[in-house]
Amino acid sequence: MKLYGYWRSSAAYRVRIAMNLKSLAAEQVSVHLVKDGGEQHSREYQQINTQELVPSLMIDDNGQQRVLTQSLAIIEYMEEVYPEVALLPSAPFDKSIVRAMALTVACEVHPLNNLKVLQYLANELDTTDEKKAAWYHHWVQEGFSALEKQLEQHSGLFCFGDTPSLADICLVPQVYNAKRFKVDMSPYPNIERINVHCLTQQAFIDAIPENQLDAS
Amino acid sequence: MKLYGYWRSSAAYRVRIAMNLKSLAAEQVSVHLVKDGGEQHSREYQQINTQELVPSLMIDDNGQQRVLTQSLAIIEYMEEVYPEVALLPSAPFDKSIVRAMALTVACEVHPLNNLKVLQYLANELDTTDEKKAAWYHHWVQEGFSALEKQLEQHSGLFCFGDTPSLADICLVPQVYNAKRFKVDMSPYPNIERINVHCLTQQAFIDAIPENQLDAS
Repeated sequence: MKLYGYWRSSAAYRVRIAMNLKSLAAEQVSVHLVKDGGEQHSREYQQINTQELVPSLMIDDNGQQRVLTQSLAIIEYMEEVYPEVALLPSAPFDKSIVRAMALTVACEVHPLNNLKVLQYLANELDTTDEKKAAWYHHWVQEGFSALEKQLEQHSGLFCFGDTPSLADICLVPQVYNAKRFKVDMSPYPNIERINVHCLTQQAFIDAIPENQLDAS
Repeated sequence: MKLYGYWRSSAAYRVRIAMNLKSLAAEQVSVHLVKDGGEQHSREYQQINTQELVPSLMIDDNGQQRVLTQSLAIIEYMEEVYPEVALLPSAPFDKSIVRAMALTVACEVHPLNNLKVLQYLANELDTTDEKKAAWYHHWVQEGFSALEKQLEQHSGLFCFGDTPSLADICLVPQVYNAKRFKVDMSPYPNIERINVHCLTQQAFIDAIPENQLDAS
């Protein structure tokens, strides 16, 4: 398998954690999201991922090279094809709780705060750095407040009980990101506690952006 | 089952289509997203959905009332508990393609263009109507361009082959939305063709916003 990613991409970070938890290895190919206007827009990478986004996972599917895209679709694929270690609980209702937590990050926070959106705000809407920071903080705070309440109900050592799941896989990269943008984490004690615990685990440590070969 | 939704919410629209395709019935409860600053923020609704978003699906889980949130998590739950009619293909790779298409809408387009984001642009960033429209169009165009290329490869009568799937369930509400905001659909012949075909199907027709009891 080949994982096309970028050290600081939250979506690639998610897939790295999932692969580590499942002890899956992949060759890492770096797609620099900033250099030369973004290597994800190169003609070569467009052949791999028409969305011009990372991550992409190239797999061998019965002798054919295939490309998987969208981090959550990639992780659900792995969950099906490599069921050990499970990243979703087995009961349908429990599974829906974990997926809902993951989607709170993946649909309510991350899409509003990623690089291309911050670039649009600055370039097209002449948003000042101060207002851009307020935008960033606003969506993190809204999402984390909702998540914090879900965690009060369902968390143990991890987001859902005492084993890592898709929810932690989405949460930890988002917290990494939030801290980079200096979001005050004190209103979210459960998120903070779970993030700290996750980062004691080797699968999470090995996936940290700064521990990637292309980190700069 | 009770589905808390709103006629114009794209996320509620997705769940309505999925339930219709699976012939599942639910009592519809309207949560007006605009009236009085948004009924989703009422104390009563917060008890049901801490994220203050629609849709929420209240179910009976072995005698206990439980609430499911996040449209994609709700639909995946239904897919597991009510496997007929299947909304995902059976092969893992095919499934990942359908999920990736759905996530292109759910993570790349819809989060940037929903009501709360457009309100933030107007209220906090003093974005003009013209620039707000350009923002809206930009993210639709980016997402639809990517999706159009995926459809060239995988579509039949529907997004993936000749049966409706999670991808169509996400696409149709997004096209409804895009048309409302006067996005030119001519660069996306496959999206347009599939949308037209979907809207000949009863499950999709019955889910159209204007066909809901709370439409105004």
